[in-house]
Parts: sequence; C-alpha cells; structure tokens
Amino acid sequence: MILINGKLKKTLEITDRGLHYGDGLFETIEVIHGQCVFLRQHLARLKTGCQRLKIPYPDETLLLDEITCASKTSEQGVIKLILTRGSGGRGYRQPDELNPSRIIALYPYPDYPENFKTQGIQTFFCNTRLGLNPLLAGIKHNNRLEQVLARSEWQDEFQEGLMLNLNEHVIEGTMSNLFVIKEQIVYTPAITVSGIKGVMRQIILNIARQNQLPVRETLLTMDFVLQADELFVSNSIIGIWPIKSLANKSYPVGLWTQKLIAFLAEYKARDITSDIT
Amino acid sequence: MILINGKLKKTLEITDRGLHYGDGLFETIEVIHGQCVFLRQHLARLKTGCQRLKIPYPDETLLLDEITCASKTSEQGVIKLILTRGSGGRGYRQPDELNPSRIIALYPYPDYPENFKTQGIQTFFCNTRLGLNPLLAGIKHNNRLEQVLARSEWQDEFQEGLMLNLNEHVIEGTMSNLFVIKEQIVYTPAITVSGIKGVMRQIILNIARQNQLPVRETLLTMDFVLQADELFVSNSIIGIWPIKSLANKSYPVGLWTQKLIAFLAEYKARDITSDIT
Repeated sequence: MILINGKLKKTLEITDRGLHYGDGLFETIEVIHGQCVFLRQHLARLKTGCQRLKIPYPDETLLLDEITCASKTSEQGVIKLILTRGSGGRGYRQPDELNPSRIIALYPYPDYPENFKTQGIQTFFCNTRLGLNPLLAGIKHNNRLEQVLARSEWQDEFQEGLMLNLNEHVIEGTMSNLFVIKEQIVYTPAITVSGIKGVMRQIILNIARQNQLPVRETLLTMDFVLQADELFVSNSIIGIWPIKSLANKSYPVGLWTQKLIAFLAEYKARDITSDIT
Repeated sequence: MILINGKLKKTLEITDRGLHYGDGLFETIEVIHGQCVFLRQHLARLKTGCQRLKIPYPDETLLLDEITCASKTSEQGVIKLILTRGSGGRGYRQPDELNPSRIIALYPYPDYPENFKTQGIQTFFCNTRLGLNPLLAGIKHNNRLEQVLARSEWQDEFQEGLMLNLNEHVIEGTMSNLFVIKEQIVYTPAITVSGIKGVMRQIILNIARQNQLPVRETLLTMDFVLQADELFVSNSIIGIWPIKSLANKSYPVGLWTQKLIAFLAEYKARDITSDIT
C-alpha cells in the first residue's frame, strides 16, 4: 500500500523535487501488530530534519492518520515515510508556496535470519568514504549516494559494511549505527560532520544511561573499533545485531550487548502498549 | 513534453531510486531551433557520471532518439535529462538487474533579461558551505541539497550566489561555474573535493586554450576572487554571465570576458550547424 498525500497511488509527479535533488527526508519505521514502533521518536527526528532543511513539517494529525491507515492491516512490516519539498520548477530555487509531498509506503518485513540477532553478523570496512558535511550530518535526508556506493561493494558475504569518513573516523554502517563496548564503556561515533543520527541509536543511548551504563559519543578510529570487547550495529528495523566478525577478527556476543538487547526488548514492549495516536 | 523510457508520461514509479536516494545523474541542455546545443559534450559527461556511479549508460541511439523527439518542436528551450538507477527495493542495495530510468523533459527557456549577459549580474557569497567528497565531486548527480539550501539564502536581490566549501575555497555558483581573470590569466576553481564540472566550464577552458589564453584550474580563496580584474559565471543555459558586483565590490565587463563571450558564440554557432544524430 502506498499513500501519496493521503491518496492511494503508485506514481509521483515527475516535477517532485525529491526526484530532482533528493530534496527530502525519510523515516523507516517497524510495524508490529498494525502498530508503528517508536513512532513518536521517528516523528521528532522528521521534525528536526524539516527544521534543518526548511521544509514545512506536515500537520501531525494528518500524518498520523495516514501512517495508521497504511500500517493498521500489517501484522509485521516496515513503513517508509518520505517527505519531499514537493513539486517545483527546474532550478534549485524553491517555489514561493511549498506543498511538501507525503509518501507513505508499507513494505513487507525483511526476512533476516534469526541468528543475525542471536549469533551476530559478519562485517567489513567499506572502501567508500563518507564526505564531510556538518550542514547535513545527523538528519535522514534523501541524498544517499554514499550509502548506495558503499552497499555496492559486497553482495551476500557480509551482512553490513562499516564506513569511515574522509577524516578516517569510523562513523556508521551503511544502514545502521555502530556501538563499541570497551572496558565497561559504551561508545558510539559522534555524528557531527558525517553520518545519520538513527532513532534506534538515540534509544540505545538513552536506555544505556537509564541503566547506569557509562556512554560516550566520540570520534573513533579503525584501530579503536578493532580492539573492542564487543561490537554491535543498530537500526529501527533490526534493533540490535551483534557483530561476530569485522575485518577477519572475531568478537563475542558479550554480556553488555546481551544486556542492551534485553533492555531494548523491555523498552520496546512498553512503547508498543502505549499509543500516541 | 516529458518522456519516461520513451513513453509520454507525467509521473514516475514511486519505487524509483532517484526519489529514494537521489540515485541518478542529470544534464541540462539548451535547445535552439529544435536542436540540442553541445549535446555530444553533455552525453560524454553523463557517461563519465555513469561510470563513477556504476549506472549502466543507456543505448546512445535510443537516448538520442528520445532527446530529439522532445527537442525537435522547440524553438528555444531547455531539455532536462535525468538518468536514475531505476526501481528497486527498500534498501540501498541495488537490484541484480538494473533498469535505469530515462527521464527527458522539455522546459521553456528561462526569461533572463538580456542585460545579465551584456552588463553583468549581482552576486554574493552564500553562507552555505559545500561539503568535501572526492567520490562525488565533478559529476552532476541528483544529491543536490547543498545547492537547494544555498539557493534559499536569497530571493531576487542577486542573480547568483557563490559557494565556498568547508576548506574555505571558493568553488562555484549554486547553478554555475566561476571564472576569475587576473593579470592576464584565466582561473577557475579546481573541482577535486567539491563542485560540479560543468559542460560549459570545460568548453570555456578549451576555447581559452585554443586561443592561447593562459588558463589555470586551481584552489581559490575568497580574497583572491575579490581581487579579480574580471569575474564571470557560466552554465549550459546562460553561457557566460559577467559578474558586475560581488559582496558590494564592483567589477567591469572586461576585455577578456568579452573575448571569451565572442569565442563562445562562434564555437556555439559551429556546434549548432554540426549534427551528431
């Protein structure tokens, strides 16, 4: 099911600036029993992105209605919400009156094997480097060629590729954020000049703090990451996937990762029973 | 008129990766008397972009047929050609079989006043900084949020904004390349970590060299640009526009700019009488 500005459609106007410039934002939201998980956090990030890109944030009641309409029939799925600046001209200048496009698409839940969660995934360092751009860092905008190019570096031999930026700092996975456990501290790369601040990344930081685990957002080198005690990646669909191998080095699914998986499961269960609509 | 993969249409499949990731390339081509100007050069750049982004370059005969079909009825206009990686999945991974989308749209020629060409334009330095990304520098891809944000800094009080990158080098205009004449030398910013290598930029470099004008592609600071004898911007639609003011400093439409405008007019007239189709 795809809703475009509330209407059932499968195509978009060719004049949409999402197509011409990647001029938009997106959210990828897990659906369980017809309900969107961590929806409040996704909409908060979307709103931040809108402020950064100067795209008017839509009427939230309308947005919630449309999201609910698309998600309510799904037992388990993924909602991709794209918000573009809407249609307008041939040039970069935006029209005086903006009519952002709300695109809400329901996808089937990906069929990831259960052992990615329990036994961990195989990863490597991509050659593709993230550029430096403080203006766009953090938000989930639709300028994603770096991720597309990085993802083209492998097929099925890994489950995720980790990306460094031009400064040779490890930033994130192509579709996930990275966490490093070392000597009883939880580290995750600071997202200041490259990378996306994932909704799940923020939730994990919050639940780690709530449970008195020491947490640091900082710049991480490849060597530091390789010397981790435990490693995992996260996003809104996979939750937490432990990393069992990186660049031919092996890592255990350690105690801290297991703790965070348990805390997250609990937090998520509470989220699902609450209802923001 | 809009042709999508050879068919008259006004909408695109919502699954197209152009929309999701800006996963594509574009060319903006001037049309005069039904004929595309510098078409050979535009297709060459598109091909380079395809190689860089690993998008299959389309059958050129087919592409030329479609471009001709859209341009032939236009007395004066603009063809925007977008080539995306085509439809595919929810994730960054591309489908095993790629079917790039060819989008060819004919727009009316913009109604720029003639005095922009003869008397010059008013410009300023944008606050928006271009990021650093050697992987994507040079090609005309559809990840254009930087330009969109820069263009939102002004309305009609200027005709173009010049952009610096994170290293504080002056790189280009939001929709044009920049040329600086100083002490009998033609300078243009080196496009290595930021910016687009415009088709018109390359043509101007070529005709300057053919006419024994000394030319340098190098990194330029704001101070160097401000101390220019003459300044101009270029793109495929405007050709050359002299800059008459930048950051409250005035510049003449000088001899070298006039020379290059004349050389370009001659070169363009020869291009129009040749025919690559």
